[in-house]
This record gives sequence, structure tokens and C-alpha cells, in this order.
Amino acid sequence: MSYFEHVAPIRYAGAKTDDPLAFRHYDPSRVILGKRMDEHLRLAVCYWHSFVWPGMDMFGAGTFQRPWQQAGDLMAQAHAKADAAFDFFQRLGAPFYTFHDTDVAPEGANLAEYSRNFAAMVDVLEAKQAQTGMKLLWGTANLFSHPRYAAGAASSPQPEVFAYAASQVFHAMGATHRLGGANYVLWGGREGYDTLLNTDLRRERAQLGRFFQMVVEHKHKLGFQGTILIEPKPQEPTKHQYDYDTATVYGFLKEFGLEREVKVNLEANHATLAGHSFHHEVATAISLGVFGSIDANRGDPQNGWDTDQFPNSVEELTLVMYEILQAGGFTTGGFNFDTKVRRQSVDAADLFHGHVGAIDALALALERAAKMIDDDRLAAFKAQRYAGWDAGLGQQILDGGYTLQALADEAAKRDLRPGHVSGQQERLENLVNRYIYG
Amino acid sequence: MSYFEHVAPIRYAGAKTDDPLAFRHYDPSRVILGKRMDEHLRLAVCYWHSFVWPGMDMFGAGTFQRPWQQAGDLMAQAHAKADAAFDFFQRLGAPFYTFHDTDVAPEGANLAEYSRNFAAMVDVLEAKQAQTGMKLLWGTANLFSHPRYAAGAASSPQPEVFAYAASQVFHAMGATHRLGGANYVLWGGREGYDTLLNTDLRRERAQLGRFFQMVVEHKHKLGFQGTILIEPKPQEPTKHQYDYDTATVYGFLKEFGLEREVKVNLEANHATLAGHSFHHEVATAISLGVFGSIDANRGDPQNGWDTDQFPNSVEELTLVMYEILQAGGFTTGGFNFDTKVRRQSVDAADLFHGHVGAIDALALALERAAKMIDDDRLAAFKAQRYAGWDAGLGQQILDGGYTLQALADEAAKRDLRPGHVSGQQERLENLVNRYIYG
Amino acid sequence: MSYFEHVAPIRYAGAKTDDPLAFRHYDPSRVILGKRMDEHLRLAVCYWHSFVWPGMDMFGAGTFQRPWQQAGDLMAQAHAKADAAFDFFQRLGAPFYTFHDTDVAPEGANLAEYSRNFAAMVDVLEAKQAQTGMKLLWGTANLFSHPRYAAGAASSPQPEVFAYAASQVFHAMGATHRLGGANYVLWGGREGYDTLLNTDLRRERAQLGRFFQMVVEHKHKLGFQGTILIEPKPQEPTKHQYDYDTATVYGFLKEFGLEREVKVNLEANHATLAGHSFHHEVATAISLGVFGSIDANRGDPQNGWDTDQFPNSVEELTLVMYEILQAGGFTTGGFNFDTKVRRQSVDAADLFHGHVGAIDALALALERAAKMIDDDRLAAFKAQRYAGWDAGLGQQILDGGYTLQALADEAAKRDLRPGHVSGQQERLENLVNRYIYG
Amino acid sequence: MSYFEHVAPIRYAGAKTDDPLAFRHYDPSRVILGKRMDEHLRLAVCYWHSFVWPGMDMFGAGTFQRPWQQAGDLMAQAHAKADAAFDFFQRLGAPFYTFHDTDVAPEGANLAEYSRNFAAMVDVLEAKQAQTGMKLLWGTANLFSHPRYAAGAASSPQPEVFAYAASQVFHAMGATHRLGGANYVLWGGREGYDTLLNTDLRRERAQLGRFFQMVVEHKHKLGFQGTILIEPKPQEPTKHQYDYDTATVYGFLKEFGLEREVKVNLEANHATLAGHSFHHEVATAISLGVFGSIDANRGDPQNGWDTDQFPNSVEELTLVMYEILQAGGFTTGGFNFDTKVRRQSVDAADLFHGHVGAIDALALALERAAKMIDDDRLAAFKAQRYAGWDAGLGQQILDGGYTLQALADEAAKRDLRPGHVSGQQERLENLVNRYIYG
Repeated sequence: MSYFEHVAPIRYAGAKTDDPLAFRHYDPSRVILGKRMDEHLRLAVCYWHSFVWPGMDMFGAGTFQRPWQQAGDLMAQAHAKADAAFDFFQRLGAPFYTFHDTDVAPEGANLAEYSRNFAAMVDVLEAKQAQTGMKLLWGTANLFSHPRYAAGAASSPQPEVFAYAASQVFHAMGATHRLGGANYVLWGGREGYDTLLNTDLRRERAQLGRFFQMVVEHKHKLGFQGTILIEPKPQEPTKHQYDYDTATVYGFLKEFGLEREVKVNLEANHATLAGHSFHHEVATAISLGVFGSIDANRGDPQNGWDTDQFPNSVEELTLVMYEILQAGGFTTGGFNFDTKVRRQSVDAADLFHGHVGAIDALALALERAAKMIDDDRLAAFKAQRYAGWDAGLGQQILDGGYTLQALADEAAKRDLRPGHVSGQQERLENLVNRYIYG
Repeated sequence: MSYFEHVAPIRYAGAKTDDPLAFRHYDPSRVILGKRMDEHLRLAVCYWHSFVWPGMDMFGAGTFQRPWQQAGDLMAQAHAKADAAFDFFQRLGAPFYTFHDTDVAPEGANLAEYSRNFAAMVDVLEAKQAQTGMKLLWGTANLFSHPRYAAGAASSPQPEVFAYAASQVFHAMGATHRLGGANYVLWGGREGYDTLLNTDLRRERAQLGRFFQMVVEHKHKLGFQGTILIEPKPQEPTKHQYDYDTATVYGFLKEFGLEREVKVNLEANHATLAGHSFHHEVATAISLGVFGSIDANRGDPQNGWDTDQFPNSVEELTLVMYEILQAGGFTTGGFNFDTKVRRQSVDAADLFHGHVGAIDALALALERAAKMIDDDRLAAFKAQRYAGWDAGLGQQILDGGYTLQALADEAAKRDLRPGHVSGQQERLENLVNRYIYG
Repeated sequence: MSYFEHVAPIRYAGAKTDDPLAFRHYDPSRVILGKRMDEHLRLAVCYWHSFVWPGMDMFGAGTFQRPWQQAGDLMAQAHAKADAAFDFFQRLGAPFYTFHDTDVAPEGANLAEYSRNFAAMVDVLEAKQAQTGMKLLWGTANLFSHPRYAAGAASSPQPEVFAYAASQVFHAMGATHRLGGANYVLWGGREGYDTLLNTDLRRERAQLGRFFQMVVEHKHKLGFQGTILIEPKPQEPTKHQYDYDTATVYGFLKEFGLEREVKVNLEANHATLAGHSFHHEVATAISLGVFGSIDANRGDPQNGWDTDQFPNSVEELTLVMYEILQAGGFTTGGFNFDTKVRRQSVDAADLFHGHVGAIDALALALERAAKMIDDDRLAAFKAQRYAGWDAGLGQQILDGGYTLQALADEAAKRDLRPGHVSGQQERLENLVNRYIYG
Repeated sequence: MSYFEHVAPIRYAGAKTDDPLAFRHYDPSRVILGKRMDEHLRLAVCYWHSFVWPGMDMFGAGTFQRPWQQAGDLMAQAHAKADAAFDFFQRLGAPFYTFHDTDVAPEGANLAEYSRNFAAMVDVLEAKQAQTGMKLLWGTANLFSHPRYAAGAASSPQPEVFAYAASQVFHAMGATHRLGGANYVLWGGREGYDTLLNTDLRRERAQLGRFFQMVVEHKHKLGFQGTILIEPKPQEPTKHQYDYDTATVYGFLKEFGLEREVKVNLEANHATLAGHSFHHEVATAISLGVFGSIDANRGDPQNGWDTDQFPNSVEELTLVMYEILQAGGFTTGGFNFDTKVRRQSVDAADLFHGHVGAIDALALALERAAKMIDDDRLAAFKAQRYAGWDAGLGQQILDGGYTLQALADEAAKRDLRPGHVSGQQERLENLVNRYIYG
């Protein structure tokens, strides 16, 4: 019998329902701004938090004790886990999923075992995708959990570790391609440093740069049509991670000539750990032309580590959704729930509560943001605010029509005495609340 | 009579002195690693905090009430302030100073008054430099205090504000050139946003990019040999500043083709506000080839704003100095005290205590770091740690000798099973303490 | 002509209105849970941010240039400011206001001038209250702006400063009493330290303790029926403020025997600066029996200083309102807008936008929280969760029925093997969103 | 053969030694301020980080693979671990150690197994103490790792969990008493909340209060002469921990009448996570009369979680040591290394490097602080600064000689116009550096 047997498939039941395990706002086929809700949101469930993590933390043992987490044969566990995962996916009704290589198959004692185990489980995933219609939003390789990666993978001081990592990525990219994945993600969980005292920043950046170039070259050789994504994170478990935030990743991509090849997979909790709002990271990535996909979660504003909670702030998500819609929506990306139920939330139903609430929050945010787009007073305000740059002096400046001296002369000649014009922040904040609260 | 009359010029008196207003470690002519201490440190006193700021904060009025801050004629005050400043510089014995245009001359009601006032005071500064031998480490323009800059200068929605700012920079660069300044600094105090709701990130970045290009073009036209420096800061007074940190500035420079023309002026307190250690920002700038100069101060680890305290941690400064020495030392840069005495430190002597303590801390750090360089066990450790990348597999990977697939094949063929090697962080930390504490 | 002449009095116009300067949700006379909205919320406008602060910050001059902020006679300005303030209060329609002594009257050169100026302006305020029906939520004394208070007021190293502060509080309490104030607030803006090196913590706490005791004794002598409130804040402008947070204030009150005499005035932005959620501070104060009043504002989660923005998160405010309603609502307290428009928001209308949006956010939060109370599933869940403590073993433990040893014996005898029960955090979070988003 | 066989016992060899595994500053028998260094410092090694933790973190598996961490019989492992631990203790030369019950013995499936296993291992520890002369600084019970404690121990919603915890504490206190422990510590690792939505703060505080009262009653019944210590920590793994910081714990102790019975065990990393300097927490505890003992470690200023690194800042430790010496030094407390080598530091020698460096840092700090005490200019400065409170007006105010009104009258009569006197922060900071750097 399925672990999730007692949870009926989640259905859209409208806002009036009293059923805590129904969608109240997510109606997949509802058309908003000319596109179905499910096509807008491209929701994905992750394998690692929901099916691999046992509920342990740095101060305590696992609390979940799922059936497939009991001691026993590792390949048998992998099969049981896949059964549970796909059962969950179907009951939930999200169209996509995501995984690391070592989430779905036992790591094995060496590369031969690794590739054998992984290949076997990719067969299983392929069959399950065919049976269920589930799609892969992205795949990735776990280059941070095994002790060999303690000092980094591509940025390891040992080339053999780089080679091992390259091998895993080679297999994970192949699997992602075969499973029709829409993207391939690189998260450098240990690509950073614990102390500068033993670290050569320039060398490690060069290693990382070469690694990403190899990945991009391989993508083209493979004929993979998806997007390569880097996931910024500022720290944890390292003291400092090289993919700190979007702006840092952008500079890195420029340095290695990869800015047209690679985009970012942005995580809300990583944004806030980096000292930015989630909104900021999304808007920055869009403005730099590197926006790719989202790891939808939230952190705790008072806690300085990755809590990976389910996103539930419609206020925050509406602004994020507005930016994405304004930029034309996702292409290959989507909203992946890189989220975990709390260690105290041990019931099978809790896994559903977390996802259902988050999906409804995204659906509400989509609906509210669509209203903002329909009647785009924010965009109109901005257009008017910057109008001076679209013609005359402003345009000439941007077009290179002035040297510094010529512009100083011009300013003197005109005796410019510009005053400040109100930025109307409070009025605009109220406007957003009107879209959200009607 | 001079405001500082009662403070005798500060002299080096050795570590045994009981005089709180003598240098105990800073002996300008002492040679370390083949260079005089003063040439290593290139110490500068800033005009703004020490002579302009009246001791006010957001919760209270100025406490200092220096003679030149009393009500009265603004040009007369500017002269009195210059007298006091140069008297202080000489009594202290730091060879450099730094200023904003509006620190030294009254802003005036329009550009004509501005340029007249500023030109008059630049004459004064030039004469004083000649009399005293003081040198200018860098000049800059204040593009953040006047209400016109409330929404930014180069990134303002109004092109007229951009033009006004260009005018100030034109004059400030001219003055810096004329006064023999070693660098010219751009600090974008309000180049950022208060809310994304009224902000067009892409436009504002384009405006900033053009502004910096104009500055660089003007530098060459002017024949200015100094370095153009951007000073990263993450926030305050804005919610988010575009020059967030070194990595962000690097990406910006790459985007606008300026990475060979512009370097960074790093401030300790800005580094920590950005979520980095000061050491990190210096090491990062060096590794990216954009290290320029230092605003030497410290923040308070428990306070989330720019406290601009005098640097006094020899432990922190030794690591910073080690990085700078390893990279060959300053070229045009130096240590500028972007520091202010506490609002409670109202005595004239307090200004000396702050600077003397900071100078001695830097002198101690220089001496300790020189020992680290003399006997460079950290560098030796790193060389050995990364040795695998200097030949064989490592070198071939970096040289592009492998595709991802070829490397995966190689790893499988060799059946690589790399283990983790200790990073020896604790041993290296102890080693640093041995250099510091003998 | 009034500065606010062009802004018509704000009226409730319902959610459908397109008027940005109408209330869409705040309908003062609407009855919720048996009480009018205005009686629930007890809204107050503050004098200092809205009428005193000129729009300056640490990096720039004032941008507002209100008519009553121009150079001139200080008492004439005070009258003009009072006219503008009461005109604003009436147009806005909030029933209460709040002030510091030196907000309403010029400080004067000594105590005699101070008390004369203040007395004159209290007459003016009294007359204006009579004319307009405005009420005073609370008064307070500014013990932090003048240079004499640079090292604290009650915690100053100089008893004369303590005496000066006592004098101000004596006059401010008298004025508050005369004006029918509902509370008297003590905010210790500089009661803290900048460095421990010059600070005697035990002495300063004793001074503060005596000060508060004197205030409480005076309250009773005066016959003032209002509540004495302490406002916790962790830091800024000091490095550390003694009234750090609610828990710290509670310990202080217990030490000096004041826990039944004094309550707390909680500010959202101070809560988050102290590392707590606003919700936490309110819930903690209620659970300790010291909840008094609210300074309604918000900080910026990415900025480490008091931004005092207008509250606009209905999500956050609903939880706060729920706690307050559950505890029986305000007695003498209310929601005071300790908020300022952004320095860029220079228009007179911006002052209205800020307040109108905040009032509507509170009205929405009240309505949502009332739904939570009507159908209190959270309380029901908690009651059931802790049911074990209401009888049997739990009750006996709390009643002192067991020694440690007796309980250990009991546990062994029963061979207790308690398992963990799900905390259902995700389900409860979804439930809250249902109340908020329908 | 011992795991640490290749590391010779650590000896004091003086500052000139080149041996990285010798003490350069810690000379146990050296007398400072009339007391031996080892008696001042009372150094302790902890069991959990050094012998139990396998080097795992939230993102990866254990890297250490110590011999006693291999799969096998749990009691055999416990014996092997005790052998290794005492071998390490002796080679290091610290006189004390500390443990949790479940560090030294397997937890077992129920209370009967737990107490049997623990009793057996306490016999082993007793024998080892007798053989080696090692002493127990404190014992404690692990009330946070087992799933039963996921929602807290004493603050659990289930009384049975409280009873289980009481049972563990009963046994751990008994063991501590029998082993001659100098203190007993309570760290409430999960006594806090993850969300307020399911939490009753008042109930949980009442439960905790009763728990601590039971512990204190039991201490007296047992005749245990040591000190009961609470260890403040603000958060992690919980969102909010009830023992947030010293001030919070003090208020809690006052509420439950325990302020004379319980003191605090302060951890540097917990202080900084709470938004305080380590120095602040020590000074606060001393000023409140609740200072007990120290968990000596350090956090990373840029990372928001407990990194438990070895303390190595002599600058920070000197100030802490100065406060402790000024307060008379430790009574029952000491410096316990609640520290772990980095996950990358996998060699047996790394465990020694971490401890040796930390011990030398404390020895240096002790020596520097003793100089500060010998010639106590800080204390002299403070005495002079507050002199006004020792007589006349100041003394009368503190003694209750004035009502608020009488003091206001006095201030008016004397026409007090106190000015601010410099706090001399910069001079005092320089003074401290003179003590540290000679």
C-alpha cells in the first residue's frame, strides 16, 4: 500500500471549500493573460527534501522515518523511493519534478558502481515519466555531500576531485537530456572557501571557469536544448560561496565569456541570505538578461541559514511574479519547490499541506500580478518618470553625444538648477496593495 | 591661535613611551621589506569626517561646535576650515589628505557660484600643499548631499541632474589633476534605489555606465595619470546601492568595458555591511586585478550602519596588509582614514587619539605582515596544496585538454577514488597568531 | 492658506474607489467584534517625523522645506507647525496624536526658557484639541537630541544631566496629564553605551532604575490615570541600548519592582532590529503581562537601521492584530504611526499617501484577524495540542506534585516512550492565508 | 595502538619554539596575579564535538571516520571513545572535560536501557578520572537530539516528554555529582518555537520554570555543591530559543525566583548570534550577578549559524578576561572548548592544533588582561567619570532623596546647564591596544 494512500489526489475546489487539502486558487487550466495557469507556473517538486532528507538537523536525528528510509538494500530503497515520489507527484498534480543524481540512485563505492546504479534508476524514471506524464524541469549532480568534495568539486585543490565531479556531471547531463529535462542546474554547494588562509581565489576561479566552459561545450555536443543554470548562494555550508548572488555570477560569466550561455536559477532563501530581497534578485537577473528559473521557497528573516520553508507570502510573490510576467514569463524555467516540511512536521499529510499552500500562494500571486500587468500603472509611472532620457538632453547623453567637458559647459550655459521630484514611493506601495487586496 | 595649538606635533617615541599622543609603532622612515613605512602605508586624513561633520546624527544635534562651524560667512568658514585642516595634517604627520569638492568650498546657489567658490579654494589648497608638503591622495565630488541628488546623480531619472553631477565631476577632476592627486574616486552615495516600484534597473545601469565612460574618457583627455576608483558600498542611505561590493563592481566594469580603466577603493565598513570580511574584499579585488586603494576604518559588528570608526584591530589589518604586500603593495592607492571620532568625543585631542591609534595599528600590521612575507609559510602551504594543478591532469584540464566526456572517460579508466585531504585551517590560524603575537 | 489646502479630507469610499486618497478599508464607525473600528485601532499621528524632521539624513540635507521649517522666529514656527499639524490631523481623520516636548516648542537656552516655551505651546495644543476633538495618545520628553544627552540622560555619568532630564519629564508628564493623554512614554534614545571601555553597566542600570521609580511615584502623585510605557529598542544611535527588547525590559522591571506599573510600547522596526519578528515581540509582551501600545511602522529587512517606513504588510499585521484581539484589545494603548515618508517623498500629498495606506493596511488586518477570532481554529489547535497539561500527569507536574526524582521514578515505572507528534506548521500557515485571502 | 599515538604530549616550550604542537604561551604553573595559569583558566575539552560529531553537516556526510565511529556494538564504541577521549585529554594537558549523558553512553531504546548504559559508562569515567587526574567541569543531559524532543523537552506539549527529560536530568545530575563535577549545565537546545502559530508562550514558560525549580530543589536534596548553569542561545535549531541571551535569562530567573540559584554559561558564538558582542554578554552577566562559566569558541561574523570555531582572537579574549579578572575570576566555572575542528580538518593532529591554538590565545589574553588589572587605568577612568554619583546631588538622587518634582525644582533653582564631557573612546581603545601590543 502506498505511503500516501490516505491522501486523495488534490483537486481545485475553489476559495469557499473547507477542505485543507484542496486547491483554493490553483486551477491549472484557468487562462490568465492568454496562458494556462500551469503553463505560467511550471511547478516542480524536488526529490531531495521531500523524499531523501530524513528530518535530521545539526542538533538531532531524523524524525520522519519514511518506509523507504529504513535500513536495507540501497537499490531496493531507490525503487521504493521512486514509487513514493511519483505517487506523490501524481496525487499533488504538479507537472514537473527535479533531482540530483544521488537522490535517485545509490552513490556506490566508485565511478563504475555510480554509473551503473544511476543508469538503472534513470531507466526507472523514464518509465515512470511515460506512465504518469510527469516531466523533468531539471536535473543536477550532487557535488557536495560526499567527503571527497569537502574542499569543493571544480574548485578542489585536487584535479582528481574535479575529474570525479566532471564524471558525475557528464552522467547527470546525459540523464537529463534523455529524460527530456528543460534545464540543467549547477549548484556549487562547496565551491567556495572556509578560510582564505588556505585558498587561492584566482586559481579556484579559473578552475570553476573551465568547468563551466566544459559543461557548455558538452551541452552543444550533446544537442541538449535546455538551459544551463547556475544557482547563486552566498554561503553555507562554506563561509563564502563563489556564486554569491546574481551580480557576482554575472561578473563571473562575463569573465569566462559565458553570459549568453548560462542563466541563473534564483532561490528566495539564497537571496535573503545574500542581503537582498527576493524581488531584487529576480529584477536584477532580468535586467542583466540572465534570468532563468526559480527555486521557490522562503527563509526565516530572523535566522541566518537556509530554512527552505514553503513560500507563503502572496505579498512577496506578487512582486516577483509581476517582474517575471513583465519580462515575458518563463521560457524553460519554472517554479521548483526547493522546500522542506519542518522537522516537526512528520506526517505524510504535512508534505501535501506544504506544497498545496505554496501552490495556492503562487496562484494567488499570479492572479494579482496579472491584474497589475493588465492595468500597468507601475510601468506607466516609470515611463513617465524617466521620460527625460528618451529624447533631448537625456538621449544625447546616452548616445555618447557629450564629453564630460561638453556636458559641463552645457550645464553652465543653461544654468541648470534641477530640483528633486517626488519618487512617490508611498503612493506606489499603496497601489500594489490595491492590486493584492482589491 | 590654532584650535589644535595645545597638541604638540606627534612624534615616534617607541613602544615604551607613556605618552598617549606619540606614535609607538609608526616610524615613517623605518625600512621594511625594502621600503619606508610611510611609502608602504601612504596615510591620508579625510576632510569630511574630521573637519566638516559637526557631530550630529539622526537622533541629535552636532556636539563638536568647532570654531569654523559657527554661523557666519561661508567662504570665511572655508578658509578657517582649511587652516585648521592643514594645521592638523601637519601636527599629525600623515603625508596625504582627501576631500570632496563641497567639503572645501561652499556649494553656492548655482553652477557659476559653485565653480567660483571651488576654484578659489583650490587655489588655497594648492598654496597650502606647497607650504606644507602635504599631498593629495584623491579628490572626489559630493553627488549625494544636495536635495537635487535625492534620487541619485548619474542614475537620476532627470538628465539635468546627471548634467549637474557631470559638471561637478568635471571640476573635481580638474582640481584633483591640478593638485597632483594620485587618484580620483567615484562614490555613488545615492546611485541605487529606495524601492524597485519606481526604479528601472536597466536604464539606471546604462546611465551609470555612460557616466563612468565619460569620466574615463575625460581622464585621458586631461592627461591625468592617477587611477579612477569606484568605492563599493551595499546600501545606506539607499536601500540598495549599485556598487554593492567588489564582485558586483567587477561585473559592471566588464559590462561597460571598463575593467582595465577603473579599480576599487575598498572600505572595511562597507565590506562588512555587504556581508563580507574586509579581508575577503581585498583578496577578491586583488584576484580580479582591480585592487586600488583602501578606506581604512571599521564598523561595529553588531550595528547595521556605517559607523566609520578608527581601525584598531591589528589581527584584521595584518591579514589585509599581507594580501597587499603579496600583491606588490600600493601603486597609486593608500590608506585613507574615512573615519570619524564618536559623537561623544568632542575634544580637539580626540581627533588626534583616533588617528594616532589607527596609524599605530596599521604600522603594527605592516610589521607583522612583513614577517609573514619574509617567511611565507602560508604561500608555501598553498603552493603545495594546489600542486596538482601545475602539471599532469590538472594542467591539462585547465589548458582545455579535456572535454567533459573525455575527462569522464579518463576518470573511469583510472578508476579515480580521490579522498579528501585536510585543509589544516586550525594550524594555519595558529601560524598567523604566531606572526602577530611572536 | 494651509499647506495641505489642496488635499480634501480623507473619507471612506469603499474598496472599489479609484481615488488614491480615500480609505478603501478603514470605515471608522464600522463595528467589528462588537466595537467600532476606530475604537479598536486608536490611530495616532506623530509630530516628529511628519512635522519636525526636514528630510535630512546622515548623507544629505533636508529635502522637504515645509513652510514652518524656514528660518525665522522659533515660537512663530512652533505656532505655524501646530497649525499645520492639526490641519493635517483633521484632514486625515485619525483621532489621536503624539509628541515630544521639543517637537512642539523650542527648547530654549535653559530650563526657564524651556518651561516657558513649552507651557505656551501646551496652551495652544489644549485649545486646538478643544476645537478639533483630537486626543493625545501619549506625550514624551526628548532626552536624546541635545548635546547634553550625548552620553545618556538618566544613565549619564553626570547627575546634572539626570536632573535636567528629570525636569523635562516632570514638565512633559504634567503636559500629558493636562492634555488628557492616555499614556506617557519613556524612550531611552541614548540610554545605552557606545563602548564598554568607559561604561559602568551596574551604575547606569541603577540610575535608570531610580529614574523610572521616580516617574512612577510622580504619576501617582499627579493622579495621572494613563499608563507609563517603556519603548524597547536594541541599538542606534548607541551601540547597545539598555531597553533592548521586551524580555530585557521585563527583567529590568522585575529588578526594580516595576513590573506592575510599567508596560511596553512596541515598535515593529525595533523588534526586527533586535532580531525578533514584530509578532514575537507582541506575543512575548502579552505573555509576560506587559503589553501596552504599538508604534506601527516597518523596517527594511535588508537595512540595519531604523527606517520607520509606513506599515503595509497585511500579512504581518494580521498576526499582530490577532494576538492583540485575543488578549482583549488595547486598553490605553493604540497604533501610533512612528513613520516617516521617504526623503524622496517631498510632496505634501506624500504625507497623506503614507498614512492612508497604513491605515487601510491596519483596517484590513483588523478585519482578517476578526475572522480568525470568530472561528478560532488556531486557539482550538493549541488547546488540543497542550491538553495533556490540563489534567493528570501534566497538571500534577505544574502543581509541584513531583520532585525530579519522583518524576524520574514515575517515568521509569510507566516505561514512558513518548513519540513526537506533528506540529502541523504548514497546515496552520495555510489556515492563516485562508483567513487573509478568503 | 592509540589513535593519537603519533602526537606527543603537548608541553610548554616558550614563544620561540618552532614546534606547532607546543604551547608557546600556556605555562600551567606560571603564577599571574597570585594564581597559577591553570587555576585561572580552568580549561575543559568537550566530548561532543571532538569525539562524537562525525564531521557531517546539513549538506554532507561525515568526513572524520574515527576508529570509534565505525559501525559496530554501541557499548564497545562507547568504551573505545572514552579511551580515545582520555588519551586526548592527557596528551593535551587540559585539566577538565565536559559531556552530555548521550555523548558517553548509547541512548538505548527506553529509560531502563538508557540508565543501565549510562551507569556503566559513568563507572568507566570514574575509573579514568582516578587514573588520570582529569576533572569534570560540568555534565549535562542531551534533551534535543532524539525525535521525542522535536517540539522541546521541558517546553514540550506532551507531559510525557517532560517526564522523560526529567529522568535524563536526574541521572545526569547524579552522574555529575558522583564524578565531582564543578557545575551542572542546562542547555535548552529545543526549548523554543518554530512558529508562534502552534505555540503557547505562557504555558511553555511555566513548564520551563517548573522544570528549573525541580532541578534546583534536586540539587539541594542531592547535596550537590556545584553551580546550576543555564546556557543562553537565541536560535538554531529553533526559530527562537527561550534562553535568548543573558538579559532574557535574568528576567526568567526573576520570574521564577531562581536568580540566586542559577547562573549563566556564556558562549561567544551564541552571544554574537544574539546580536551582542561576547564582551557584552560577559559584562552584562557580571553586572547582574549571574556570571558562571564560559563556552569558549567563536562564530564567523559573516555566517548566521553556530560555527563553534576555536577562539583565536587575543584582542576579543583580552577584554573578556579583563572583565572576569575584575570580577574576581571564576569560582566554579571555567573555559570549556565548545569547539569543533572544521569538517575539512580530518587529521587527528587537527584536533590538537585547534585546542593548542585556543589555549595559547587564552593564555595570551590572561597575561594581557593581568597587565590591565595591574595598572588599572580603565577602572580609574570610569571611577573619575562617574564620580558625581558618589556624593552630593548624584548620591542623593540614587538614595531616593528627591521626587521628580523636587529634582525639577532643584534643577530650576540651580539653573543647571550641564554640557557634555568627552567619553574619550578613542583614547581608551588605544590604551587597550597598548596593553595587548606592548
